[in-house]
Amino acid sequence: MNRRCCCLPFLSVLAASLLSLPAFAASPGNDPAALAKIRDAAMASDYAWERTADMTDLIGPRLSGSPGAAAAVTQVAEAMRKLGAKVSLQPVKVPHWVRGVETGELVEYTGRPKGITQRVVLTALGGSGATPAAGVTAPVLVLSHFDELKARAAEVKGKIVLFDVAFDQHMADRGLAGPAYGQGSAYRRDGPRLAAELGASAVLVRSVGGASYRLPHTGGTGLADGARIPAAAVTAEDAMLMARLAKRGPLSMRLVLTPQTLPDADSFNVIADLPGTDKADEIVIVSGHLDSWDLATGAHDDAGGVASAMAVIETLKKLDYRPRRTIRMIAWMNEENGTRGARGYLAAEQANVGKHFGAIESDNGVGRPFGMRTSAAPGAMKLFGPLQAALQPLGAGVFQRQDALQTGDLSGLERAGVPSFAPLIDTSAYFDYHHTPADTLDKVDPDHLRRHVAVMTATAWFLANMEQPIGRASVPER
Amino acid sequence: MNRRCCCLPFLSVLAASLLSLPAFAASPGNDPAALAKIRDAAMASDYAWERTADMTDLIGPRLSGSPGAAAAVTQVAEAMRKLGAKVSLQPVKVPHWVRGVETGELVEYTGRPKGITQRVVLTALGGSGATPAAGVTAPVLVLSHFDELKARAAEVKGKIVLFDVAFDQHMADRGLAGPAYGQGSAYRRDGPRLAAELGASAVLVRSVGGASYRLPHTGGTGLADGARIPAAAVTAEDAMLMARLAKRGPLSMRLVLTPQTLPDADSFNVIADLPGTDKADEIVIVSGHLDSWDLATGAHDDAGGVASAMAVIETLKKLDYRPRRTIRMIAWMNEENGTRGARGYLAAEQANVGKHFGAIESDNGVGRPFGMRTSAAPGAMKLFGPLQAALQPLGAGVFQRQDALQTGDLSGLERAGVPSFAPLIDTSAYFDYHHTPADTLDKVDPDHLRRHVAVMTATAWFLANMEQPIGRASVPER
Repeated sequence: MNRRCCCLPFLSVLAASLLSLPAFAASPGNDPAALAKIRDAAMASDYAWERTADMTDLIGPRLSGSPGAAAAVTQVAEAMRKLGAKVSLQPVKVPHWVRGVETGELVEYTGRPKGITQRVVLTALGGSGATPAAGVTAPVLVLSHFDELKARAAEVKGKIVLFDVAFDQHMADRGLAGPAYGQGSAYRRDGPRLAAELGASAVLVRSVGGASYRLPHTGGTGLADGARIPAAAVTAEDAMLMARLAKRGPLSMRLVLTPQTLPDADSFNVIADLPGTDKADEIVIVSGHLDSWDLATGAHDDAGGVASAMAVIETLKKLDYRPRRTIRMIAWMNEENGTRGARGYLAAEQANVGKHFGAIESDNGVGRPFGMRTSAAPGAMKLFGPLQAALQPLGAGVFQRQDALQTGDLSGLERAGVPSFAPLIDTSAYFDYHHTPADTLDKVDPDHLRRHVAVMTATAWFLANMEQPIGRASVPER
Repeated sequence: MNRRCCCLPFLSVLAASLLSLPAFAASPGNDPAALAKIRDAAMASDYAWERTADMTDLIGPRLSGSPGAAAAVTQVAEAMRKLGAKVSLQPVKVPHWVRGVETGELVEYTGRPKGITQRVVLTALGGSGATPAAGVTAPVLVLSHFDELKARAAEVKGKIVLFDVAFDQHMADRGLAGPAYGQGSAYRRDGPRLAAELGASAVLVRSVGGASYRLPHTGGTGLADGARIPAAAVTAEDAMLMARLAKRGPLSMRLVLTPQTLPDADSFNVIADLPGTDKADEIVIVSGHLDSWDLATGAHDDAGGVASAMAVIETLKKLDYRPRRTIRMIAWMNEENGTRGARGYLAAEQANVGKHFGAIESDNGVGRPFGMRTSAAPGAMKLFGPLQAALQPLGAGVFQRQDALQTGDLSGLERAGVPSFAPLIDTSAYFDYHHTPADTLDKVDPDHLRRHVAVMTATAWFLANMEQPIGRASVPER
């Protein structure tokens, strides 16, 4: 009965007083008391923590095409079936890249004592090509900017090019981890291709991340079949060492990278619907991505995101709350190196995109949430007041609008007009762990994860029950 | 002329005004102006930084018996000869342990999806025995205390025992890094032997250190020939994972460790004397240790210590200051896994121990120094006032007495009566890097290193010129 009620305080109070009635309890709409109850239920549950632990402790790394990714599909689907959600597996073909041997050794430099070489800690970037099994030995060219690559283009041929660009942790500490990561990852994404075009024999990038514990940060490159140059990330420490030695004189290294690019593999998006009532044909997505990089168990990236999306369904099921619109949990496959899951979903839903009311993805780790970012229409922002009010006691009532969020999996839907939502979170430490061997369960704070679930569930619920439209995303041309 | 003058302010001021006279400049004794000049010269120099860079960037790891250790002997001896010091190489036989393959894999546990195993990041402990090349597969027994080893002694046989004892970083943050390290390293030192005695097939310890970036911390064990059980440190993350999985049910792992213990190797202490004047037969040692563990370049442990000791000689040479007692720079060999260098020196100097006035070693990293710790006699502490006053502008005037410092290399001399000195420094971050792959040059702050040199040089100079005895160390029986 309250479903169609908007947020008049009087009716909300009345509604709260009626919460014990069964029919009402099943569909309380966007009544403030219902939102509070959702928030409090999330804060009292460790369901997301348990699912994050299952994904990371029992399975571990989940790179697309790996046994871990397949096991995660099964595990998440089973958990969602156990909740009584309507589960389907959406087939997708995914890239299948497998890490091999990876070693680096500085074999010539000014001042090198006889018989001494220096080991470099590195890890192949996703999609990297391979060196011969015995490796490639070549002079190293240390560059600090793309401009320098242009200026020294004539020197690149046959060299191992190192882009020694430091991650801007100061920026990350001040709420700008995204731009800091963007600056750094540009070299990882474009550096290998650009240096390959100039004849480089291999490309190294300084790890894109804040931690200084000899940690290599892997990640995707723009490399494709036919142009797969050997490409690796060296740790910040080793990049600095190489830059210092290059200042002393000529520097040569031996690099061995033997990753393989196998034929595309079969995999799946896991989709679990909590069917809506009177607007069941309209869809609100809550999601995270199921695949991870292969160096760690991907606790922050993105087991915690998937587990939070799963917990949205669990929280509402536990409360016996049914949304007006269908809430669709999606555990996307292959966000990290292809976004094939997101592309496949978009292709399958092309005719139905207009029925997607909004889409949430958590893919910035599960640090403390401060609220939400969204690409909903500017006029919609004022509609979120009751939702913000419900989250404010958690310090999570900040809603920020951007013209486009461009999250990995939702960007296609967003370009097609579906407003995106992503938790606004503390990411200052995220890039200390992200894509490194250190992204493990112990880095997840159970309290932060509960808050994350509270924000995701309240937002999903709110969107699924709104009277007013929130408009369509209008993503500016890039 | 001022050499025999004690620290009367009037004479000190007079002495300062005479500093330009050549004869005086060469031997200004413990005049406050001379101490200030030493301090300021150290703060204006990057000599120690350059030597630290040479040791770490050009050579790298320097484990006893390795080519790196040999190269370091040559490099340091050459640098000291270049300064005009009287250099000798004191032969010592050192253990020669070489790391091999090291992998860990959790192969059975409750909830394990078919085809999935979990990789564990670990590193062999120094002196570890080897598993067969194909590894050993055994159930894991997770223990959190020695008492638990006793209580569950009957379960140990054939198991891989994991001591999951967390490093107490809170303690380390509050000036108690030493005791925190002592608590943790007890399991590394005694755990393998004690578990071996109960029939364990291998022993793992949780890495003893504060950083949480999947870093394994190696270090010595008490293992000797005939009783070398395979022993490794797992990262904090992996220890926690194993403890969590063990709570779910039985846990088994496959462990491969193939280190080798080779015959003892020939090596050297590097000794460089700055001869004294009227008390040249008395000796003040300034020292650090030349060997490092093999996972990193040992910048904090202990290239920075050796470089600071070298810089004591360089600073005094540059100022053309000659001490009354001989200042002896020693770069000890084999502190990490045998202290053979220190033992050899003590044996060679047995008859001459009484002539050792005091001994300084820097072996707690080169974080910011706050002053000095010493095992000088209680009555001597008041004599250090002028030295403290000279260091106070650097915030390094705190002198603390302990009955025994028991630093790795000086403990033998200390037991024989030679008062020990060690910089009192900020070690809160030291165990984040110590014995891990992350102990690299970039972790050394050039300003802290200069302060370190200032403290070491002023103290060495002060000791070498003191009128009064500082007594003998009186180390209590343990």
